[in-house]
Amino acid sequence: VPEFSLIRRLASLVPTSGADIECSIGDDGAVLCPDSGERLVVATDTLNEGTHFLPGADAGALGHKALAVNLSDLAAMGASPRWALLNLSLPREDAAWIEAFGSGFAGLAERTGVRLVGGDTCAGPLSLVVTVLGTQEPGRSLRRDGARPGDDVWVSGCLGDAALALERRLAGRPVEGRLAEALDAPEPRLALGRRLVGVAGACIDVSDGLLADLGHIATASGLGAVLTVADLPASPALAALEDDTRRWSLQLCGGDDYELCFTAPVAQRDTIRGIARDIDLRLTRVGSMEQGAAVRCRAPDGAAFRPARRAWEHFAGSDGG
Amino acid sequence: VPEFSLIRRLASLVPTSGADIECSIGDDGAVLCPDSGERLVVATDTLNEGTHFLPGADAGALGHKALAVNLSDLAAMGASPRWALLNLSLPREDAAWIEAFGSGFAGLAERTGVRLVGGDTCAGPLSLVVTVLGTQEPGRSLRRDGARPGDDVWVSGCLGDAALALERRLAGRPVEGRLAEALDAPEPRLALGRRLVGVAGACIDVSDGLLADLGHIATASGLGAVLTVADLPASPALAALEDDTRRWSLQLCGGDDYELCFTAPVAQRDTIRGIARDIDLRLTRVGSMEQGAAVRCRAPDGAAFRPARRAWEHFAGSDGG
Repeated sequence: VPEFSLIRRLASLVPTSGADIECSIGDDGAVLCPDSGERLVVATDTLNEGTHFLPGADAGALGHKALAVNLSDLAAMGASPRWALLNLSLPREDAAWIEAFGSGFAGLAERTGVRLVGGDTCAGPLSLVVTVLGTQEPGRSLRRDGARPGDDVWVSGCLGDAALALERRLAGRPVEGRLAEALDAPEPRLALGRRLVGVAGACIDVSDGLLADLGHIATASGLGAVLTVADLPASPALAALEDDTRRWSLQLCGGDDYELCFTAPVAQRDTIRGIARDIDLRLTRVGSMEQGAAVRCRAPDGAAFRPARRAWEHFAGSDGG
Repeated sequence: VPEFSLIRRLASLVPTSGADIECSIGDDGAVLCPDSGERLVVATDTLNEGTHFLPGADAGALGHKALAVNLSDLAAMGASPRWALLNLSLPREDAAWIEAFGSGFAGLAERTGVRLVGGDTCAGPLSLVVTVLGTQEPGRSLRRDGARPGDDVWVSGCLGDAALALERRLAGRPVEGRLAEALDAPEPRLALGRRLVGVAGACIDVSDGLLADLGHIATASGLGAVLTVADLPASPALAALEDDTRRWSLQLCGGDDYELCFTAPVAQRDTIRGIARDIDLRLTRVGSMEQGAAVRCRAPDGAAFRPARRAWEHFAGSDGG
């Protein structure tokens, strides 16, 4: 049965055992041992070829990214990842593809302490579903509904790089270095998420673009927000774009950033700057929460800014949107 | 974002909250509260159109079956199901399909106490990935590696009905009643799995056919086994087949049965018959474990029986096998 041999092959590439795993791949289910009283935090995401990544995408990058986008969700909850499951649909058995995919997955799994405990591989159009399970102390979850009026809005890292990289790749231009990494190998902000517990009021990971994701915090918290577009953090590649509207639009709506957006009381500014130093990660104040129901963007001249129609919509359009 | 609205719509159809759920659909992850000291049991399965079900399959039946095949894994571990996640890829937004699928999923979820706590819906070829999480007391898992030489081999319910139903449906013949139910609405044997804890030595759910799945028990336990084909439990529809070889082949290799196959010491026969009465489920002794490394089948005349090439291989062949 090929479904069996492929998951076995994958299991030989990635960490699958540990003191908190009684039974892993090879039985009907995995038997896991959370510590007494721990909360379990679970997240899952699908990546489909043609919808979430381009046909012919590098297998190693997909292995990393399929796990990374899920770990990013756990980071946004302030949880520590422990176990993962992988459902892999492949059009045909391809040992070299599996090898590369497994290596990409394993590299990130090892670095973040994640063990693969289950899943399946089967025939079908290329599709990657990863489910991650993490744990945390009770009452320590970073949720979307904890923002308060007047809270600062912060964002980690830089925004818009993945979208710019996708634009260039779709145009057939080479994409390398930091830009390629932003799109192919996003780094889940796990250390930041854990440090934000007790500091941030609300938190979300930026996967659909800052505007949409801050919108989720605003809606869940029954508030509005205002963003100052000139404050949005930009990498050198993005800062080099001369068209302000294009740059801000990529930063606000690009998506695939996998940075954390969080809110915190003004009184926490020094603490947050200390966290940024401790974990060596740029944290930028980009706006604030306010009464209302919308997320507004303010240009440097004080006027309202509306992002341009997304340059990559012909691709993202396959998402049904 | 349609990915958001569809999972919300599904969440309105199925149970999503409970005292052991702090945070469910609508945040980056679900926050769940296992009891202190409980083991967590996790299983996941993919159903792809064209590989695991026929194009145009009934949406309500798929909703039931996608959950049922996963609950069957928890049953085989002796665990109690609690939470589920659903990753649904759909070629297009189709409200009626979602409605029917959600109803099928919800019916079984409500009956078995499962709450939907996460997942996503996105554009792609039709694919259903369900992940189920259950709990059980430490040291109570039914595993594949616990069979001993001389143990009886038992199986629940009847075998071969789903395979016969698939054969007939592929031939364009109407399939109704109990046969259709076997293929479209298998019933996970959760009560049986729980009762077998402390009674069975090894247990597996029959998804790939009894021969293959008992083979997994044999391999994991370092043993062989012998099956008496005349003892395999048959429904009236299957018993009516005049060709013994065809009937036994369907029962041994048909797959999609979702019954439990388990081993137990001879001394447990009365206990097992008592369980069968208590839960009103047929349990049949079909063979025994022995030294060796293969699963043998014995015909009524004592000769070795080898199943015929599977009639449905032109369909199952898309599975890569």
